[in-house]
Amino acid sequence: MKDSQEYKEKKAFFEKIITLYGRNVVVEILQDSSIEIHKLHLADSNKPDGAIKKILLLAKERGIEIVKHNKAALSRISKNAKQDQGVAIDIVSKTYLHVNKIKELQQYRLIALDGIQNPQNLGMIIRSCAAGNIDGVILPKRNSAKISPLVVKASAGTLFKLPVYFCNTLEEILPQLQEAKIYSLSSHAKTALNDIREEKKTVYVLGNENEGVSDTVEKLCNDSVSIPMNRGVESLNVAVTASLIAFKA
Amino acid sequence: MKDSQEYKEKKAFFEKIITLYGRNVVVEILQDSSIEIHKLHLADSNKPDGAIKKILLLAKERGIEIVKHNKAALSRISKNAKQDQGVAIDIVSKTYLHVNKIKELQQYRLIALDGIQNPQNLGMIIRSCAAGNIDGVILPKRNSAKISPLVVKASAGTLFKLPVYFCNTLEEILPQLQEAKIYSLSSHAKTALNDIREEKKTVYVLGNENEGVSDTVEKLCNDSVSIPMNRGVESLNVAVTASLIAFKA
Repeated sequence: MKDSQEYKEKKAFFEKIITLYGRNVVVEILQDSSIEIHKLHLADSNKPDGAIKKILLLAKERGIEIVKHNKAALSRISKNAKQDQGVAIDIVSKTYLHVNKIKELQQYRLIALDGIQNPQNLGMIIRSCAAGNIDGVILPKRNSAKISPLVVKASAGTLFKLPVYFCNTLEEILPQLQEAKIYSLSSHAKTALNDIREEKKTVYVLGNENEGVSDTVEKLCNDSVSIPMNRGVESLNVAVTASLIAFKA
Repeated sequence: MKDSQEYKEKKAFFEKIITLYGRNVVVEILQDSSIEIHKLHLADSNKPDGAIKKILLLAKERGIEIVKHNKAALSRISKNAKQDQGVAIDIVSKTYLHVNKIKELQQYRLIALDGIQNPQNLGMIIRSCAAGNIDGVILPKRNSAKISPLVVKASAGTLFKLPVYFCNTLEEILPQLQEAKIYSLSSHAKTALNDIREEKKTVYVLGNENEGVSDTVEKLCNDSVSIPMNRGVESLNVAVTASLIAFKA
């Protein structure tokens, strides 16, 4: 019984960890004292000069645990051998939360992402939602861009300002949000975004850059809304759509 | 006198020409019968197979003039030796207009770009403005991203749907738009975008991705507006800002 509780806590802790990589990104993170760091991972092949020297110094200053690995083990941690440059860092994000936490909210406007692939779009979505009137983004782990240095860069430092609710798939979580009104965004929808009166709990689902919202997710939505466009334009960039929802008057 | 008139007409014609490059882009343009093409330029070193074969076939079908050049001459035309792949094409755009044309409009909402550098941002701005309530974009030739294949791609096929007014610099054109109310976008401005009542002729100036609107351009604006942001976020992506203006209720 005690073991099981310990296991649960450990699992919950590790689920909240975001692993980033690349020398410049790691330097930036180490310099930002507002970011809680779990561990720093280094390839034992790294020469201790330049950026690595700086990284070691910053980690020592903050008293952060450093673990050395061979290159293959390090790339299993970074999950990006091509771009990790022998450096990865585990961040304990206070804003990276399990979707179950949504059920504790009395009122919310959320954006759920169904198969967003482009890290720049994901970063821009987070930036606009953090700046606008959105209480969080629902980001599935499967079939979606992951939090990576490119996302951090495109978010312009806002990643850790906005709750990002993780789940495995939207198919799993949307049916559980029974009190919420769930809208898919679709250019074919007859109802315009600006014409709906929002409920206390509202979720907007944005689809993949090319395909839009998938059929299986569409079926889990209560209704579909569009953003009316001029000049026969067929669609907007997904980060722009998220921004228009985030700043909807 | 006659020469001078001819010269003026020639100059006006060539000013409206947009030169794009790269094999896939040129194939796409040749396949789009709505785009008027002036000339196709090929490097004489191109092997006549694959994409080049297709390009030659499409150009012949449409009766388009083909000019061959040595590689150096071709890259002077494309202005991008690294990415032209030995192919460039001159487009006569009906929507690429001299800023003087603005004076003929009775009413307008325009977005003027002050030093936008990122071609993806420029493409997204054009896409959102074409889809929203904007009558055109003012794009200086100096110190700004140029219309390129990356811009075309990020515009998702909307580039030729929206008037793009070209000028040398904003410093040159803004003082001439005397009837217009000109706003710069600035995160420091006290007036919120949604609180202003727009005049019949309104221009919004958006600044460079890092620096914002330059001091010299700022002085030519009548007022400054901001988009209020939550969570201490300092700025929005410039294409997102353009989109919020384009879809302002």
